[in-house]
Amino acid sequence: MDATYYQEIKGGIVAPKGYRCHGVRCGIKNVESRKLDLGLLVSDVPAAAAATFTSNRFKAAPLRVSKAHLASNGSIRAIIVNSGNANACTGPRGIADARRMTELAGEALAVKPSHVLVCSTGIIGVPMPMDRIAGRVPSVVAGLQSSKDEDFAKAIMTSDTQMKSFAIEFRLGTKKVRIGAAAKGAGMIRPNMATMLCFVTTDAAIGKPELRMMTQSAVEQSFNRISIDGDTSTNDTVIVLANGEAGNRKIQGATPSARKFREALEHVMLHMAKLLVSDGERVTKFVEIHVRGGASFTDARKVAEAVANSMLVKCSWNGSDPNWGRVMHAVGYSRARVREELVDIYFDGLCAAKNGLATATPIEKLKAAVAKREFTVTIDLNLGEAEHVVFTTDLSQEYVDYNRAEYAIRVS
Amino acid sequence: MDATYYQEIKGGIVAPKGYRCHGVRCGIKNVESRKLDLGLLVSDVPAAAAATFTSNRFKAAPLRVSKAHLASNGSIRAIIVNSGNANACTGPRGIADARRMTELAGEALAVKPSHVLVCSTGIIGVPMPMDRIAGRVPSVVAGLQSSKDEDFAKAIMTSDTQMKSFAIEFRLGTKKVRIGAAAKGAGMIRPNMATMLCFVTTDAAIGKPELRMMTQSAVEQSFNRISIDGDTSTNDTVIVLANGEAGNRKIQGATPSARKFREALEHVMLHMAKLLVSDGERVTKFVEIHVRGGASFTDARKVAEAVANSMLVKCSWNGSDPNWGRVMHAVGYSRARVREELVDIYFDGLCAAKNGLATATPIEKLKAAVAKREFTVTIDLNLGEAEHVVFTTDLSQEYVDYNRAEYAIRVS
Repeated sequence: MDATYYQEIKGGIVAPKGYRCHGVRCGIKNVESRKLDLGLLVSDVPAAAAATFTSNRFKAAPLRVSKAHLASNGSIRAIIVNSGNANACTGPRGIADARRMTELAGEALAVKPSHVLVCSTGIIGVPMPMDRIAGRVPSVVAGLQSSKDEDFAKAIMTSDTQMKSFAIEFRLGTKKVRIGAAAKGAGMIRPNMATMLCFVTTDAAIGKPELRMMTQSAVEQSFNRISIDGDTSTNDTVIVLANGEAGNRKIQGATPSARKFREALEHVMLHMAKLLVSDGERVTKFVEIHVRGGASFTDARKVAEAVANSMLVKCSWNGSDPNWGRVMHAVGYSRARVREELVDIYFDGLCAAKNGLATATPIEKLKAAVAKREFTVTIDLNLGEAEHVVFTTDLSQEYVDYNRAEYAIRVS
Repeated sequence: MDATYYQEIKGGIVAPKGYRCHGVRCGIKNVESRKLDLGLLVSDVPAAAAATFTSNRFKAAPLRVSKAHLASNGSIRAIIVNSGNANACTGPRGIADARRMTELAGEALAVKPSHVLVCSTGIIGVPMPMDRIAGRVPSVVAGLQSSKDEDFAKAIMTSDTQMKSFAIEFRLGTKKVRIGAAAKGAGMIRPNMATMLCFVTTDAAIGKPELRMMTQSAVEQSFNRISIDGDTSTNDTVIVLANGEAGNRKIQGATPSARKFREALEHVMLHMAKLLVSDGERVTKFVEIHVRGGASFTDARKVAEAVANSMLVKCSWNGSDPNWGRVMHAVGYSRARVREELVDIYFDGLCAAKNGLATATPIEKLKAAVAKREFTVTIDLNLGEAEHVVFTTDLSQEYVDYNRAEYAIRVS
């Protein structure tokens, strides 16, 4: 894949043709807050849609409603999103509220509610303030525009420190095709997604089965490879819309165009996944864990995830300590097939342990590698050909401080 | 089981008849340190022995040597233990060093090396300072005594803030029987043991198969139910010695005596396990997670462990935040069979969530429960009869601070 092949462009989710979005302050986060918390994304024509939802057994109400709408309708016109309240653990009332949100958006846009998807993120166990939402839907519709994605990207933020927006353009045959994205993440990011929402738009024309397959595979290659604290939320959602406005020949089957589009979609999702990790709650390091030499893919994945989720390993990175012993511990308890006397560990290419034993690499050099803001930990199991990569962070005192009380339950 | 049935006594691991111990400063932790770091425990007569070792696939050299000695010999005379160096990830040299430690102790005590067990805890990947150990074995042997266990209990400590010692006495038929214990723990405690050593002595006479079975079951009921940070070490070991000096009728088969002794052994191990959790690295809360109503034991265990190991849940406890929503998250991603609309969550008996929804219990009351130094979180899955209990802690900024650099690798 040629990286220079894509051109990064401005405009985020409204960079592709035929999309409009807006975000307003609705008072869900806090009545007095000035933060935006209600967003709307619209496709001017029906768009093919694909989505993946949290692996948490407890799925929040908006996910269940969106899932039902997707199942009854391959084509979607709009997505309404709020931050500040996850509408999770809210029972039958939560379902009714999520449905109502699609109705409110549908009425204001003159489209069927079943052509609208809904997402929520924020505190859980508290009913949605539906009056406030109903009162603000007309404003969010009135403000829809195709040139500016910031308000939407900000309206979906929770503990994120910066909005996450990205778009690329590339050629497909004689046509220019665009893919845009907006996401929110921060804490609770782990493989199989967690408190993260990502919306991807494209003006490519693509068959619905192809879009679904590519979405699944791109999520697997991106969001399912990131981990901040090992928790998984009830609300994680990735939605991809493709409205065909680029006028390309419809992508179908296993053609070169299909491969090109799939790679571009993976490129966008991987970029967004990395943005989420970099902005993990109060993290100071971005770490790539590259496991190779696994006897199987499952073994490589188990090792990568055990290392990425070890609190002790994460603490050592926070202190810029090239502690390969703790990495070995995590490799050992990962339940993967491993042999101590074969394991090699590298920090940014410097060999810290060879055949399970300390090397002569000067400790100062190893410390310098781990002191960087971004570095790679390579673990070679030397048992086979399987590899796996995950992206993770350190564990900081600030993370603990932030999470001691930030989400304290409010009783409405 | 009648709790008043056991009398707590002084003397720790040398409270039972026929045991002596000692601990000296050997300079393993640090040549200039005044901390004790070499301990020896001796039974005056051959003792039946049983042990359980770490589930980490990477087992440190002393565990492999001890395992071999136990396999070739049901009877053990001594255990030599050092802190400051785990003799882990040390290759063939590590094995030779661990064997040498049993030889040094064996020579000084005039017993076969194969009747000696060896344990190590501390930094990993660094060869043992065998000269220093060899030089101090005579002193540790010369100081052996049956009235004082403090020096031994201190010599096995690493990041523990206090030594862990306990002993009980109870009647078995017409005889008084004693069980004593010494342990070290602190960080990296999780189900299936982690950087913890526990030595249990008894003067009861008991058959070797019975001792092995009871040891396994007591470890399952105690050390495998505790979790501080989810990591598992290469060196975890529980060893039980039974020398028969109490003169009781040998415990064999499924008799009332056997049941009585098994309960006493579980009582001692559970007490030690709770001591380890309470002294977890920089923790401020001791939390019992009680899961009930599981469809199966495995489901109940998965839920209890997911909640106990969730960083976000642990942070909320640190902040005295009765955040049942985070508990629900963890229940949801535990991979256990669960149904959101059936889950009840209690903090010290106060119902925070009923049928997966917030209750009217005043938030102040819930906060007061979680503000306590010790409290119970009860999760009722309402799907069956299975239960599981684990003991865990909060996650503090001090934990992160402590673990940022404490175990930084030293190159010797």
